[in-house]
Amino acid sequence: MDFTVDSATPAVQASFDATPDSRLRDVLQSLTRHLHGVVREVEPTISEWNRAIEFLTAVGKACTETRQEFILLSDVLGVSMLVETINGQDVGTESTVLGPFHMTESPVRALGDSIDEVGGSRVCVVSGTVRSTSGRPLAGSTVDVWQCDENGFYDVQVPDVQPAGNGRGLFSTDELGRYWFRTVVPSHYPIPTDGPVGALLNATGRHPYRPAHVHFIASAAGHEEVTTHAFVAGSPYTDSDAVFAVKEGLLVDFVETDDAELGAHYGVEVPFIHAAFDIELAETA
Amino acid sequence: MDFTVDSATPAVQASFDATPDSRLRDVLQSLTRHLHGVVREVEPTISEWNRAIEFLTAVGKACTETRQEFILLSDVLGVSMLVETINGQDVGTESTVLGPFHMTESPVRALGDSIDEVGGSRVCVVSGTVRSTSGRPLAGSTVDVWQCDENGFYDVQVPDVQPAGNGRGLFSTDELGRYWFRTVVPSHYPIPTDGPVGALLNATGRHPYRPAHVHFIASAAGHEEVTTHAFVAGSPYTDSDAVFAVKEGLLVDFVETDDAELGAHYGVEVPFIHAAFDIELAETA
Repeated sequence: MDFTVDSATPAVQASFDATPDSRLRDVLQSLTRHLHGVVREVEPTISEWNRAIEFLTAVGKACTETRQEFILLSDVLGVSMLVETINGQDVGTESTVLGPFHMTESPVRALGDSIDEVGGSRVCVVSGTVRSTSGRPLAGSTVDVWQCDENGFYDVQVPDVQPAGNGRGLFSTDELGRYWFRTVVPSHYPIPTDGPVGALLNATGRHPYRPAHVHFIASAAGHEEVTTHAFVAGSPYTDSDAVFAVKEGLLVDFVETDDAELGAHYGVEVPFIHAAFDIELAETA
Repeated sequence: MDFTVDSATPAVQASFDATPDSRLRDVLQSLTRHLHGVVREVEPTISEWNRAIEFLTAVGKACTETRQEFILLSDVLGVSMLVETINGQDVGTESTVLGPFHMTESPVRALGDSIDEVGGSRVCVVSGTVRSTSGRPLAGSTVDVWQCDENGFYDVQVPDVQPAGNGRGLFSTDELGRYWFRTVVPSHYPIPTDGPVGALLNATGRHPYRPAHVHFIASAAGHEEVTTHAFVAGSPYTDSDAVFAVKEGLLVDFVETDDAELGAHYGVEVPFIHAAFDIELAETA
């Protein structure tokens, strides 16, 4: 049978019928249907199809050990956020995107350590408790954090300026489920604009900025893992994040305090910035 | 407003509203809707989303100056064929996929020249007339041909065995719209299986073979250009082409002949293989 506009989709779907892994089969058959749907809807010219091939190739070429342009593409198309939202727990702390900068392992650090190895202008303490949604504090849970510096750069982007692991830390909560660490207040920043995804944003009149945030992955035995951000409330771009990741419940006040007792508790001089971000994890079913 | 499974698509579509090029805007908004459609339908886990990112990255990395793995991916998903079918002329010779091997310019050759610079075992003459769909022969039309050798390889795949330009030729039809050239009968062959697209075919139980064919792009002033194949009738895989490109009307008999007069006409010894493939181009509107 000839391949026609009408027979195309069932023909390609049928080619996947014998896929041993039924999940892979279902995914590919769904992908085929929707991909053909775009083609049927926009009716690309050969030249437009060529540009799409060139764009995807350039995205692949832009990927390196320290840069993941396909995650960036997934992010700016809202796909990452949709996947995270679908996979997020129904209760407890909301999830948001992983982003493209979680490509190195965070160094293991002790509670209270600073993740700022460069020395920023304003000391900030981030603290919180990891709890089960039942309210029980989760001792020994893992809190993986990473963030950019006050100039908006992650360590992997500026290896001449920041040592590897700067702005990153892997913490374990204490017997009361608490974590705390010293850092700097992250800046809002543009996602990398020197690659094909930047060119796409430019061509579509979209700005590349993300509001300031600290990334978190929190996990505890018997509980759902959560990938999320603490967004700096009041940061520019909280209402137009280039990757659609902001949720109201994730906006956190980063407050200057001159509370000497609190400063002594965290081992920092006053005044300092304090951000409180508790995390609630749902029990696994 | 929070990004939810329901608000995701309109939010991302709205981010493209200010795209200066309205065509680009429409394409991206359609792509967003269908891409989100796949995600909503298959509900990928984070791990599956990661595998998709890794797969696309590997496809990009596999692309070189002489290999286009994204075209290959588009081909095995039937996207290339769907785009070609949508863009193909409604009358005259049917179109089929460009394929990933038209990456070098074909050498200009004179009518009757051989495109086989290596010396295959069986001489083959391919001949035909380029006509307007009105029946008028089109003198001076361009016929770009490329094919693999008797072992199923294109020149760019085996540069140690075939000189660049082997199996390729750019011809101009004579005053009666005729073209003819010498070659070898191409073999059926597997598309490259050592990359991520090959791994995909393997994981889905699909074979990688294409039936034997000669590629053509025919163009003439005032007419639609046609990208097509002459398939070797009776070749294995004509009913299960890995890239869905076969159309009944493009099956051509490659016939052994001992017609001495015909041999003399084409300057070859008998017996030889002869394939007749006329091409009809629609006038541009």
